Amino acid sequence: MKPWEGRFTGATDVLMERFSSSIAFDWRLFRYDIEGSAAYAEMLGRIGILSGSEASEIVAALSEIAGEIENGTLPFRDELEDIHMHVEQRLIEKIGELGKKLHTGRSRNEQVSLDTRMYVKEELARLDDDLKGLMEAIVRKAETEKTAIMPGYTHTRRAQVIPFAHFLMAWYYAFKRDRERVAGARLRADVMPLGSGALAGSTLPIDREFLRARLGFSRISENSMDAVADRDFVLDALYAAATIMLHLSRMSEDFILYSTEEFSYLSLPDALCTGSSLMPHKKNPDALELIRGKASRSMGALFTLFTLIKGLPSTYNRDLQEDKEPLFQSLASTREAVAIMALAVRGLFIDREAMERAVRMSFMPAVEMAEYLAAKGVPFREAHHIVGTMVKACEERKVFLWEMDLDEMRRYSEAFDEAVFDYVDPRHVVENRKTEGGASLREVERQIEKESAYLRGP
Amino acid sequence: MKPWEGRFTGATDVLMERFSSSIAFDWRLFRYDIEGSAAYAEMLGRIGILSGSEASEIVAALSEIAGEIENGTLPFRDELEDIHMHVEQRLIEKIGELGKKLHTGRSRNEQVSLDTRMYVKEELARLDDDLKGLMEAIVRKAETEKTAIMPGYTHTRRAQVIPFAHFLMAWYYAFKRDRERVAGARLRADVMPLGSGALAGSTLPIDREFLRARLGFSRISENSMDAVADRDFVLDALYAAATIMLHLSRMSEDFILYSTEEFSYLSLPDALCTGSSLMPHKKNPDALELIRGKASRSMGALFTLFTLIKGLPSTYNRDLQEDKEPLFQSLASTREAVAIMALAVRGLFIDREAMERAVRMSFMPAVEMAEYLAAKGVPFREAHHIVGTMVKACEERKVFLWEMDLDEMRRYSEAFDEAVFDYVDPRHVVENRKTEGGASLREVERQIEKESAYLRGP
Amino acid sequence: MKPWEGRFTGATDVLMERFSSSIAFDWRLFRYDIEGSAAYAEMLGRIGILSGSEASEIVAALSEIAGEIENGTLPFRDELEDIHMHVEQRLIEKIGELGKKLHTGRSRNEQVSLDTRMYVKEELARLDDDLKGLMEAIVRKAETEKTAIMPGYTHTRRAQVIPFAHFLMAWYYAFKRDRERVAGARLRADVMPLGSGALAGSTLPIDREFLRARLGFSRISENSMDAVADRDFVLDALYAAATIMLHLSRMSEDFILYSTEEFSYLSLPDALCTGSSLMPHKKNPDALELIRGKASRSMGALFTLFTLIKGLPSTYNRDLQEDKEPLFQSLASTREAVAIMALAVRGLFIDREAMERAVRMSFMPAVEMAEYLAAKGVPFREAHHIVGTMVKACEERKVFLWEMDLDEMRRYSEAFDEAVFDYVDPRHVVENRKTEGGASLREVERQIEKESAYLRGP
Amino acid sequence: MKPWEGRFTGATDVLMERFSSSIAFDWRLFRYDIEGSAAYAEMLGRIGILSGSEASEIVAALSEIAGEIENGTLPFRDELEDIHMHVEQRLIEKIGELGKKLHTGRSRNEQVSLDTRMYVKEELARLDDDLKGLMEAIVRKAETEKTAIMPGYTHTRRAQVIPFAHFLMAWYYAFKRDRERVAGARLRADVMPLGSGALAGSTLPIDREFLRARLGFSRISENSMDAVADRDFVLDALYAAATIMLHLSRMSEDFILYSTEEFSYLSLPDALCTGSSLMPHKKNPDALELIRGKASRSMGALFTLFTLIKGLPSTYNRDLQEDKEPLFQSLASTREAVAIMALAVRGLFIDREAMERAVRMSFMPAVEMAEYLAAKGVPFREAHHIVGTMVKACEERKVFLWEMDLDEMRRYSEAFDEAVFDYVDPRHVVENRKTEGGASLREVERQIEKESAYLRGP
Repeated sequence: MKPWEGRFTGATDVLMERFSSSIAFDWRLFRYDIEGSAAYAEMLGRIGILSGSEASEIVAALSEIAGEIENGTLPFRDELEDIHMHVEQRLIEKIGELGKKLHTGRSRNEQVSLDTRMYVKEELARLDDDLKGLMEAIVRKAETEKTAIMPGYTHTRRAQVIPFAHFLMAWYYAFKRDRERVAGARLRADVMPLGSGALAGSTLPIDREFLRARLGFSRISENSMDAVADRDFVLDALYAAATIMLHLSRMSEDFILYSTEEFSYLSLPDALCTGSSLMPHKKNPDALELIRGKASRSMGALFTLFTLIKGLPSTYNRDLQEDKEPLFQSLASTREAVAIMALAVRGLFIDREAMERAVRMSFMPAVEMAEYLAAKGVPFREAHHIVGTMVKACEERKVFLWEMDLDEMRRYSEAFDEAVFDYVDPRHVVENRKTEGGASLREVERQIEKESAYLRGP
Repeated sequence: MKPWEGRFTGATDVLMERFSSSIAFDWRLFRYDIEGSAAYAEMLGRIGILSGSEASEIVAALSEIAGEIENGTLPFRDELEDIHMHVEQRLIEKIGELGKKLHTGRSRNEQVSLDTRMYVKEELARLDDDLKGLMEAIVRKAETEKTAIMPGYTHTRRAQVIPFAHFLMAWYYAFKRDRERVAGARLRADVMPLGSGALAGSTLPIDREFLRARLGFSRISENSMDAVADRDFVLDALYAAATIMLHLSRMSEDFILYSTEEFSYLSLPDALCTGSSLMPHKKNPDALELIRGKASRSMGALFTLFTLIKGLPSTYNRDLQEDKEPLFQSLASTREAVAIMALAVRGLFIDREAMERAVRMSFMPAVEMAEYLAAKGVPFREAHHIVGTMVKACEERKVFLWEMDLDEMRRYSEAFDEAVFDYVDPRHVVENRKTEGGASLREVERQIEKESAYLRGP
Repeated sequence: MKPWEGRFTGATDVLMERFSSSIAFDWRLFRYDIEGSAAYAEMLGRIGILSGSEASEIVAALSEIAGEIENGTLPFRDELEDIHMHVEQRLIEKIGELGKKLHTGRSRNEQVSLDTRMYVKEELARLDDDLKGLMEAIVRKAETEKTAIMPGYTHTRRAQVIPFAHFLMAWYYAFKRDRERVAGARLRADVMPLGSGALAGSTLPIDREFLRARLGFSRISENSMDAVADRDFVLDALYAAATIMLHLSRMSEDFILYSTEEFSYLSLPDALCTGSSLMPHKKNPDALELIRGKASRSMGALFTLFTLIKGLPSTYNRDLQEDKEPLFQSLASTREAVAIMALAVRGLFIDREAMERAVRMSFMPAVEMAEYLAAKGVPFREAHHIVGTMVKACEERKVFLWEMDLDEMRRYSEAFDEAVFDYVDPRHVVENRKTEGGASLREVERQIEKESAYLRGP
Repeated sequence: MKPWEGRFTGATDVLMERFSSSIAFDWRLFRYDIEGSAAYAEMLGRIGILSGSEASEIVAALSEIAGEIENGTLPFRDELEDIHMHVEQRLIEKIGELGKKLHTGRSRNEQVSLDTRMYVKEELARLDDDLKGLMEAIVRKAETEKTAIMPGYTHTRRAQVIPFAHFLMAWYYAFKRDRERVAGARLRADVMPLGSGALAGSTLPIDREFLRARLGFSRISENSMDAVADRDFVLDALYAAATIMLHLSRMSEDFILYSTEEFSYLSLPDALCTGSSLMPHKKNPDALELIRGKASRSMGALFTLFTLIKGLPSTYNRDLQEDKEPLFQSLASTREAVAIMALAVRGLFIDREAMERAVRMSFMPAVEMAEYLAAKGVPFREAHHIVGTMVKACEERKVFLWEMDLDEMRRYSEAFDEAVFDYVDPRHVVENRKTEGGASLREVERQIEKESAYLRGP
């Protein structure tokens, strides 16, 4: 029996029951649904719609139902549509007429908003912890490897020598910003909607403040129509997840690239790789490739929601049911991906020798050479041109800049003297860089220290 | 035991096993995987890698495994990753050493391409049938209601009188185009990849032509690297599904609008509506709202795939695993949505009286009035201005154009005479329209006749 | 002459020059580019790379160049690629060798980050003002119309009576949340990147703190590689714009619907409508339709950026150039749309009579009737069923609930008595609703008062 | 003066004029608009609405207007909204009253559909030519380099030896499929909509067949409401463009990777690279990075259209105006990107030595070694395990498989004999592969030959 069948003549089509049922995924909300219902029953007791003992009886029965769902003994049926109706129906089976009172002045529109908000709050809190775990792993790795140097890249071309730890810390700051987005999303989810009814609130004296406190929310919603329709908090959660996955995807790509046979700066732990069914020698960075792939899905989830919400007339419409699977899928896989990346960072093996070899076999000191000339008064644009010409000449002779001797250099500019060799030595470069946030050993130390303190928290 | 563990030292991390496992969704491919493996075993028999009896033994065991999966007696385990390895492992359990020969010269890269192609071909064939069913429903409804007239809208404003059947047939043509897209997608899926190995083909004399014929494909792939990497056919299938859902979503929106209390041109069968948990009087068009919502997901699935594929280095990468869930989800819900819409069209109740009332209570004959003047030699832009001025005057007096008498009309233009009343009568308008494809009763008849013939097919 | 041509042999292909040039759109950054360069020159003066008079000469010349660009007298050329090189080249033309010193220790990678950050900060500040203007317009309209009542809708079906002002305020809260997102985006943009070089900082003692203060930023970037690569602030700006447009699009849709001939609750000012080239009677809500359409583009812009960034190897890559047009387009049209919506709200004409008629001609008091029974002790689920049955009976007889007399009602439930007629009277309903945030006249007053204070600001 | 102002009271808001004007981009359609209008005038002449000389006078004036737009002497003004009204207004200026007759029975709704269809047909025809040019470049390069061998990659890890030309041809087949999509999109665009009016056709005897033939279309639209609303052909064009850009983006990524210092298999012509403003030694693959970036925008354009169309009520709505910029932008940059890639392919320098060195310094013959054992009767799964174990042993000793002697190999399997060294030699492998489409020299020849014939065309 459907709760609303009083007004209907025909029965629901079976295909329609399957098409419209959401129990296959929204059962995941059961804990929140039951907690919300228990709080609601207590509140009905306080305002006299239920007697004290009625309220207690309902709360007790709800708690049993939670157990039944956990144990898998409550069968799910498409004709009961969703988790809300499963719980209510089971309650009526258990305690009869009294069960029919629970829904007084309440709508599924606000219930699903409540449940989803509770879910989002909890998952984002966990995601935030996961992020901190990853950031901790990065800082620790940066510390361990803080003297390793490697080529830094722009346009996937060797650009300037950098400490490996500086490269790693660049990703750290992306995740630090992600925590801000997660915090914003949590704030927006932290609003208690019960008491909004289907869209208009209620003529009954629902005690919203009691419900807020009982369910651990910071604020109550201020407009009942906004309350039942608003899914901005879902967008915010999906946006935060999508940006985290974006960063993880790019970081994965870096690690995949740097662990190729050709770069061979890094290798990944066997525990995160898999092999080939055909090629006996393969060790593939599957974990990181999957992060890249799952990032696309989190982005797809965000865009699904945007498109879905754009098409909605105001307040509640059934389209909103389709926000659940993308939301559940995206948050779950983002949390897993963060954890996997933390494992990857911890298990990363760094080949310092390979990195240093690459640093040496390159034209990278060109910038410092130009800065050297600039410091000696050569206008920078000219210094740039001079060194560019030297690089071209070296390429033709298949030598590197440091293989030129001073006489030869001075043919390009009189401003060169012996000191240049020292100035452009890679180890010296990473010691000499002077700017805050620059790719220097000193700055790496500073970053590690400051962020270690941040992670230990206030 | 993993098939590739010969080369590895460490074991796979448990979190990684869960993160990378695809068996939870790719088990849906089992029938194709087993059919592909059986064909492969037969082929190995033909080229002498297996004896005839070995091939038969494998085929028989595979058939048993299919039964076990159907009955749910084969347990799925994350550490076996995917459907391919579950089948192979079970085969080895059943027939020992012989089972280890099946994978000779074959890679999972080509297997998953094969399975997915077989799945897409089959699902698209069914989707095409579903589309024909919907188109049939539309033509039948158009025929039944072919004399009903209603306001046609642009900018959600009453524009010109049209036959209701003309409005319905407009959607028909969208689905007819969708069949072309489905056909294109089927063509692109209909390519047999086996024999491509991991990316390079094989030194063994794999008989690709035999496999093609045995598995019912039209063509074999022409470049092994393209074969293992190509997911264009997935994009094409998702694009076809997304455009179908786009049309269904807009058609749903039209039906939702026209069945509001305010329009009340249509009502939907109870079998496709649901009620409210709080509001006893509600009958909500949930089926159609869900179509709108699920359309967003199909669009999200397409964009997930675009983003995913864009990030891929060439040939096979593990990211590709993440194409499965969006693909399965989108095709399944598109098929359901098409079927639901066919039910909606068949069950639609048309309120002709309400429609005619709306036709009458409007300024819609304004166009015809201007065309009437134009036919009498008034430059159209001037005729347009004259009638516009008349409309403004009517609005101020709160009357409609047909409530003006001839004298009054002639104050706006001398060109008006008695005939105008007849010319702008809505029933006459839908009889008089002369253009092919126009909103006339004659054209509706023509469309119905022509498309009935098309649907009966050659 | 290209600044980097020292190292090149071949000339750039002409097609390539056109393909890679960004001057056609990034000239919009010229004010920021010049302000950034002036600050940079001053800083070079402070650290002794330039003399004081050299710095002044550069600053003065830059100021002239700004004037030339404003007046359109500086021609743009594809071979100079972007705004940065146009400004530098012009500087060299003007002041010769000295101009070549400006770029000392600086990279276009950090320059474009700086310019874009300055642009985003400024545009978001303006957008925030625009949002406040719109919110102000909503509150004022709500106040003016605070006693008007109308049907509230769920599933585009009449659900419960509400004050029109409550409906309007529901949108207000969406924009209030949007301001939070804008604030988050501003915060993330407010980081000064200069001194990061191409990716590694500099061996020169660039005074970043001076630059920060001089250019009005709150913080400096902490990691040079992150600084040149980070476009999270662009994502955040586009996300904020997309959610604003999402809200505007849905609000537009509401207004379009409510202003149809069928609803006719509202009409829009002529100043925001346009007519038809063919149909003289049409007045179309083009402004609102365009908002809906432009919303899609803002969502598309966000998606573009996600996809673009996902594919990037770490630090700077040229792909990033393609972030500009979506960013400029989205922020500009969001600002315009907010302003247009403020005009629409201010100019909205409300037809109270039509609204009240619709309230009356409906089954909407059904909820309150059920709540009435529940308050009398009938279990809510049963009360719901009773009223549902009454609605069905009424529909068959084509009457409304309030057309039943008490005797008849009591045939459905003994709990009914005379008081019910008063309880379900729409005007009483909007007076009686008790919940905070509910659709009652009292709550509307509270919302208006509280938010007026908020808008007056601290 | 607006053509529709007869019915309006207030003037259009200036902000609204700017917001709603499309002339800034739709002027690009002027040639189609004028050609369509000329055809329409001729048709009006044939059906007697215009006299023969009137029709000629209009056609002549239109031709002058085309000239004025080309020369830039016709100023564009926001208050005239779009290209259609600019042309009509100018016509009236030129020839007075007669100009007011042109629009008889015609609507901008059908005009914009016509213009856009003509534009899409023409641009797709050109894009198809561009694609053929690129495919030709690939085949020619493959032919020139057909004996070069390199490592083939899966998971960005060396997998199996392949001919470089086989890698190149893999991309060829992607573009060949793209031509099918372009062809489908052209087919769908090739439908003549004139005669559909605003949505309902006309009471005037518009000669649609004449218009079709005169304007070079294959078919006329069959339902007037579908005709004015349908933008499927825009989706199809954007989908084709997005898939082409997807392929170009991935191909770019391959070239960028293979031309790094670390891979150094390829180098790109200077004509497609640019340098750094700071780093004198850089030569960056900007052309290819921009292709990657612009690919995101084409994907964003497709997404924009999907979202836009999903939100549309049926038939024409003003939102549709926003399809133009994404369409123009995407088709133009796709055509440019195809041309740039053709330049890149032609100018590519291949370093055969570096490729062969990489082939040799790898465990790649492992597959062939396992196939060798399988051919000798070792069950493949066992052979795979044996070779995997050998690889692990080699890695520990830092040698390659080919550095093991036979005795050592036989410790892993008795099945090894002298012939194995020959079997796994890379040159022999690419000669021995037997499968059609496999990575063998013979198959590369076959592909080149077959596709050369295809490109010469029928």
